[in-house]
Amino acid sequence: MGHAKKRVAETQMTKTQKTKGKRRATAESMAKKQREISVSEFFTKNRHLLGFDNPRKALLTGVKEAVDNSLDACEEAGILPDLIVEIRPIPGQEQRFTMIVEDNGPGIVKAQIPNIFGKLLYGSKFHRLKQSRGQQGIGISAAGMYGQLTTGSPIRIISRTGSRRPAHRFEVRINTTKNKPEFTDEEVDWEKPHGTRVEIDMEAEFRKGQRSVGEYLKQTAVANPHVRILYRFPDNHEIFYDRVVQELPPETKEIKPHPHGVELGLLIKLLSDSKERTLSSFLQHEFSRVSAAVAKKICDQAKLSPRAHPKRIAREEADALHSSIQNTKIMSPPTNCIAPIGQDVLLAGLKKEIKADFYVAATRPPSVYRGNPFLVEAALAYGREGDTMEVTETGKIVARKRASSLDTELLGNADEAIRLVRFANRVPLQYQQSACAISKGVIGINWRSYGMQQPRGALPIGPMVLVVHIASVWVPFTSESKEAIASYPEIIKEIKLAVQECGRKLGAHIRKGKRIATEHRKRSYIELYLPHIGIGLQEILGLDDKTRDEDVEILRGILERSRKI
Amino acid sequence: MGHAKKRVAETQMTKTQKTKGKRRATAESMAKKQREISVSEFFTKNRHLLGFDNPRKALLTGVKEAVDNSLDACEEAGILPDLIVEIRPIPGQEQRFTMIVEDNGPGIVKAQIPNIFGKLLYGSKFHRLKQSRGQQGIGISAAGMYGQLTTGSPIRIISRTGSRRPAHRFEVRINTTKNKPEFTDEEVDWEKPHGTRVEIDMEAEFRKGQRSVGEYLKQTAVANPHVRILYRFPDNHEIFYDRVVQELPPETKEIKPHPHGVELGLLIKLLSDSKERTLSSFLQHEFSRVSAAVAKKICDQAKLSPRAHPKRIAREEADALHSSIQNTKIMSPPTNCIAPIGQDVLLAGLKKEIKADFYVAATRPPSVYRGNPFLVEAALAYGREGDTMEVTETGKIVARKRASSLDTELLGNADEAIRLVRFANRVPLQYQQSACAISKGVIGINWRSYGMQQPRGALPIGPMVLVVHIASVWVPFTSESKEAIASYPEIIKEIKLAVQECGRKLGAHIRKGKRIATEHRKRSYIELYLPHIGIGLQEILGLDDKTRDEDVEILRGILERSRKI
Repeated sequence: MGHAKKRVAETQMTKTQKTKGKRRATAESMAKKQREISVSEFFTKNRHLLGFDNPRKALLTGVKEAVDNSLDACEEAGILPDLIVEIRPIPGQEQRFTMIVEDNGPGIVKAQIPNIFGKLLYGSKFHRLKQSRGQQGIGISAAGMYGQLTTGSPIRIISRTGSRRPAHRFEVRINTTKNKPEFTDEEVDWEKPHGTRVEIDMEAEFRKGQRSVGEYLKQTAVANPHVRILYRFPDNHEIFYDRVVQELPPETKEIKPHPHGVELGLLIKLLSDSKERTLSSFLQHEFSRVSAAVAKKICDQAKLSPRAHPKRIAREEADALHSSIQNTKIMSPPTNCIAPIGQDVLLAGLKKEIKADFYVAATRPPSVYRGNPFLVEAALAYGREGDTMEVTETGKIVARKRASSLDTELLGNADEAIRLVRFANRVPLQYQQSACAISKGVIGINWRSYGMQQPRGALPIGPMVLVVHIASVWVPFTSESKEAIASYPEIIKEIKLAVQECGRKLGAHIRKGKRIATEHRKRSYIELYLPHIGIGLQEILGLDDKTRDEDVEILRGILERSRKI
Repeated sequence: MGHAKKRVAETQMTKTQKTKGKRRATAESMAKKQREISVSEFFTKNRHLLGFDNPRKALLTGVKEAVDNSLDACEEAGILPDLIVEIRPIPGQEQRFTMIVEDNGPGIVKAQIPNIFGKLLYGSKFHRLKQSRGQQGIGISAAGMYGQLTTGSPIRIISRTGSRRPAHRFEVRINTTKNKPEFTDEEVDWEKPHGTRVEIDMEAEFRKGQRSVGEYLKQTAVANPHVRILYRFPDNHEIFYDRVVQELPPETKEIKPHPHGVELGLLIKLLSDSKERTLSSFLQHEFSRVSAAVAKKICDQAKLSPRAHPKRIAREEADALHSSIQNTKIMSPPTNCIAPIGQDVLLAGLKKEIKADFYVAATRPPSVYRGNPFLVEAALAYGREGDTMEVTETGKIVARKRASSLDTELLGNADEAIRLVRFANRVPLQYQQSACAISKGVIGINWRSYGMQQPRGALPIGPMVLVVHIASVWVPFTSESKEAIASYPEIIKEIKLAVQECGRKLGAHIRKGKRIATEHRKRSYIELYLPHIGIGLQEILGLDDKTRDEDVEILRGILERSRKI
């Protein structure tokens, strides 16, 4: 008995020890858990940051990343883009689809394929300032990673760089622990002389309508009239967007950073990385708009020799140099690096899609934020019952014949918020509208002064589609998924100016419409009461019926002339 | 002449060649530009993603990241946190401040300091499921990187892990090209037995009021009553938040992922990385809530042997295993890993800060999104003129004496949107309110049914502060800056349920208030007209003044009794 008791006591003690003994963490125990996180692991866990929140959005994001890359590559190589986009259900696998994007671009050299598709943060567009759709080196490898995560399948690529070279077929997986590709490669027959084809199996949901792949491709075709897209989607449907213009948009130039947009830390890094021998040549070659004279001015003000060696500039000297740069007047960055869509293309796109009463467009001159050139353009279609009108480029309003039908589906109803269509570097943006600088700019305008209703802090109300495009050598997005533009004050200001320019012409149109409507109402009163006045006159003056009718007609004529309708 | 002409012609040709000769890119020329992008380079260029958009926000973000780390470390080590937060202007340097956060935590071992402060994506919290403030391994090194970028100065750290060990002082810079730390280290005297002090010079703007460091610290003190914070800010001001409770919040447990939240790709990775010898033990040890019986069920359904070797599971078998897991009923994840702030603390915080008419709080039971347990709690203060009321825990409304003053500054005016205070794992969220799941949940509620005004798609209107807290082992933020919570349907649903629970009680209060107000109005009419009725009666019946007044009093009594005021 005594023995058994002891054993019970022992067990209890062990239990207590276990509970009490569970020590809290110390610096040493915490240190053991510290480790590196690979960027792929980070984005796998945070895949919503890349636009892979849910199966529906994932499909759109995947297609978008592949199409962006195809268009960028075609344009850089001077090829008119010819795309095939296909969404194919995987038999027997509900909620799984294969997305395919095939282009006639320059192809990708063999050695680069694994990294481009199987490594996050790898690419050619990040380290330069040039207007392009892609800019981060994340997009397409993230789409492949999402496909791999949800279906276990690798991303499949066929690419060929010329008719005299063989096509290669790759299967690429991403090792998320190391952020490195694992791949197979084989030569294959491919009918295209050059181009790239990407296939990704993914958990997805196929839908039509707002924020769908179809909607995205349609808007892409509108903003890129030089592109031809064949879109195949489930149940053997096909939509073909033919090219409308036979020329590529003007090629945009890569520029150097503007000195005023460079932060101190970056300046220090550039100085220590520089291969230039003198401060003067460093300033002239690393930045745009710095002549020898400007370089000298900057150095003088910083009390540094223009012949000093860049690598030997001390921290305090760099600080002085930075202040001096900020205080020196330097020409604005070159703006031939920006290619707008253009008023004609924007208006043509609107007119093709929407039958409205009134169209107008405006393009702002280029401007600068954080040293980066950018440009905003806007266009709108406004539809109400009544005569079709158009504003000419000189601002004159011309009446045209009545529109065949009011496209309420696209324009929205008169009592709903306007439809806002956003583009960044010719790419339509589908999600996160409320977080976007474009929305903030549009909401910040006083639409009542143009005769529209506008609830406080919201988009205006009315049957209207408003298109806004921002083009820049570097578009600041609010997240890696590139769905909304960050609210830099300079950008919001330009958005407002572009939209206000359209708004003022719209205001004139709406006021005129209101004036006409008011006159119509007054006129209908006159029409209503004139016969009664006639009868009154007949009774008082004893007129016969014919004279009465003649008098009524005379009165009508007088009144109409006086109202000038 | 002929010679001169030729030279001109040559020059022209060269010019033409130069223009025409500028060849478009090829696959080969593009390949040369392809290169790796370090995660630090990426976030330097995209620093707005980390919350360093502008000098004002940068100061708040920097303090927040340091305070989050200090509180996490103290709590893990079982130490009641004692913090000093200081914002110090740098003499002669406008727009530059030093931010200092010092704690009494366990300290950081020497070898880890450079990586923790000088490398993005490094930490102990990413690879685990445990409720904590930090979770990404980005925050504090990003703050240091921003400081370095804008001032050129290194981040300075003093840390000591115990009274018998020396304190170390580090200066850490981040090499952004390599995402690696460069540092100096020296032993120093420090009066604290253990703790960590972080100093960062940065371009910043110091402000008070909404979304300031002060506001953030105040809200932190409210949600963390076990914390003591001394806050020093420019012009020799100090605010001291003493601790209100002497106990740490219950320690939360680290949990294994729940099988239902694991994607196929992750399952494949876990299988190939596993050190377990059988599929059964793999399932039991890598996941929560999988017993031997459940493991067998999963294996049977997938037609796999429970004794199969995890590393030898083929892709198709993994797919079957994944489906089988999804189709097997498995107990919900454990919820002792979640520590709410608690209704008492939330109400006490509201009552301390705001004198309102009515307070109520609600805590939801834990729920699950993507396999991660989470919990929502809400509290609100509603203030109107009139009697102070309170709802007891049983839901009964008790009238109290009139409030001393209506705190309109905090509650907002009656015709403005309510004030929403958001917390995630006890951290107050200051920015991006409109993008947050909390806002979406609150806006999605029909506030009119509680007697409040609500514009379409907007927060309700009224003098009210609403606090919502989400606690989870992994909070899904919409960006690396952790300002807003991603809109998972399960999370929005729980937010709605918690707020609706408060809303219903508020509705009863408002309805009662309205009833009283209506009665007051009716009563005032009676008071207004009774004397006139008296005079009328006097005239008709020929009463003397005294009888008239008596009759009026009788009438008043009857009417008041019948209206039950």
